[in-house]
Amino acid sequence: MLIDLKQAAEFIAQSDDILILSHANPDGDTLGSAYGLCGILQKMGKRARTLCADEIIPRMEYLRNTVATQEFEPKTVISVDVADRTLLGSYDEVYGDRIDLAIDHHESGQPFAKRTVIDPAAAATCEMIFELAELMNAPMDGQIASCLYTGIATDTGCFRYSNTLSKTHYITAKLMENDFDAARINYLLFDVKTKGRVELEHALIKDMEFYCDDRIAVIWVTSDIISRFEGRVDAEDFNGLASLPKRIEGVQLGATVKQKGPTTFKVSIRTAEPINAGEICALFGGGGHARAAGCTIEGSLEFVKAKLMSALKKAVASE
Amino acid sequence: MLIDLKQAAEFIAQSDDILILSHANPDGDTLGSAYGLCGILQKMGKRARTLCADEIIPRMEYLRNTVATQEFEPKTVISVDVADRTLLGSYDEVYGDRIDLAIDHHESGQPFAKRTVIDPAAAATCEMIFELAELMNAPMDGQIASCLYTGIATDTGCFRYSNTLSKTHYITAKLMENDFDAARINYLLFDVKTKGRVELEHALIKDMEFYCDDRIAVIWVTSDIISRFEGRVDAEDFNGLASLPKRIEGVQLGATVKQKGPTTFKVSIRTAEPINAGEICALFGGGGHARAAGCTIEGSLEFVKAKLMSALKKAVASE
Repeated sequence: MLIDLKQAAEFIAQSDDILILSHANPDGDTLGSAYGLCGILQKMGKRARTLCADEIIPRMEYLRNTVATQEFEPKTVISVDVADRTLLGSYDEVYGDRIDLAIDHHESGQPFAKRTVIDPAAAATCEMIFELAELMNAPMDGQIASCLYTGIATDTGCFRYSNTLSKTHYITAKLMENDFDAARINYLLFDVKTKGRVELEHALIKDMEFYCDDRIAVIWVTSDIISRFEGRVDAEDFNGLASLPKRIEGVQLGATVKQKGPTTFKVSIRTAEPINAGEICALFGGGGHARAAGCTIEGSLEFVKAKLMSALKKAVASE
Repeated sequence: MLIDLKQAAEFIAQSDDILILSHANPDGDTLGSAYGLCGILQKMGKRARTLCADEIIPRMEYLRNTVATQEFEPKTVISVDVADRTLLGSYDEVYGDRIDLAIDHHESGQPFAKRTVIDPAAAATCEMIFELAELMNAPMDGQIASCLYTGIATDTGCFRYSNTLSKTHYITAKLMENDFDAARINYLLFDVKTKGRVELEHALIKDMEFYCDDRIAVIWVTSDIISRFEGRVDAEDFNGLASLPKRIEGVQLGATVKQKGPTTFKVSIRTAEPINAGEICALFGGGGHARAAGCTIEGSLEFVKAKLMSALKKAVASE
């Protein structure tokens, strides 16, 4: 059943012993939503705890301080920022068919919960949690605000991306009326890199390939490179590489190809208008949006390279 | 005479034929303030034009679209984001002693204008221009909003730095109620880099020096490196390198040293709490803030390196 935020607020207000589920391989929005909502519920006098199939990202450890540890048998299960029940990871089996309320900002495929509230215009699920708190007249404090800020900052690239609306800034302004160190959070989320990550980026950019008068740039994260950096970088350091090629001035199509197995290559494409990344990836059975999309291509490195480069050159040449 | 924003608004409202001066070596805040204010004044039916001793930054060319070209003999001269009259560059001689109103957010030394309005709590002078426009009930549109947004985004590192307050987000929310492409501006300001700049950054990072268990990181931009990249990078590409070393995880003191002449080295220092960058730079006759400061050291590369490293190691060891 699709419900609106007001109905969701009413449902939460009358619930107790609440378990809040984040998606596996968690990001700042699913964690910020879970810890923020949990803190709000505990402050309202309810029992609540969070659960995630994977470990919290080390640099987001501070989110934990928002909540007290509470043990109880859950009567209500809420998922936050989970677009599909399979994204619950190992907890899908336990909780996937007993979610009472799903709160999400992704334009989802199949709703999986008894009640679902979705706002695709929200830049982050944390925006929706903030609005829920207002609807419930729930108390706010610096810790809770820091959680909700984390999700908004994560999903907007610190207010850089086009999903950042006037409303995003209004909500952030209200969050920042509470006492927390937003600059410190931004430093942890956006500025700081491990030494290994910097070296990895350097190695990848050094070997970046340019085509079509530098309008195409491609990075190859091959098994060779991955094993060369094993032990020197965290697993997390191999994420977020997709945006690198497109950052070069003049590049209209940036591709990052990551080897997943001997003959499996995951392709991430970022484009400038009017090149459609989703259309390119659809040629290989993938998909996504006009500016960002992905697909997987099977075959030898040489085969994949020939296939992919032919498609990329064609896409750029036709503009 | 120090005046408040309301008095400044009254002064502007009764003025006409207004020349707006930016500081030399202009950034997004001085340019956004100038073009934004100029657009506001023209929309109010006044004659106004902007003037800057140096060229507009190419990626900020879009600011120009905000204003119509108007020729007139100025009756009123306003400076924006100019902390000291010498920062007017070549226009100091012509206009330095006839500024009717200085609008600025820097805690200035010697006020130089007939009227000065300063708000050190404003993250950007563009915040003050927005408030002036509200006080004057001046019309706003997407073009003007894009100028004021540019200044705020520039001076806050896209809402990352600690000068970003709740009010900063409120003003940005109001600006974004107008129609302009903030994501495109952020891309131009923060994401896109020239190929040369990327290569320069990676050459510098590759040779970055680490000391004291990686708590100190130092980048040397020597004449050798500068001449190696000459022609491959824009002059602008040598700016904004000071933040690089401090971005490495665990680095508490980052220094970037730029060779200005055979025996002249400009040092920029960024620190984490509690290391005081200003105190370190004061040892060499420089100054600045606790987290960011600068100084110039004269001598051979070897001499400067020995002097500087001794001071840096001492500062880190004493914490």
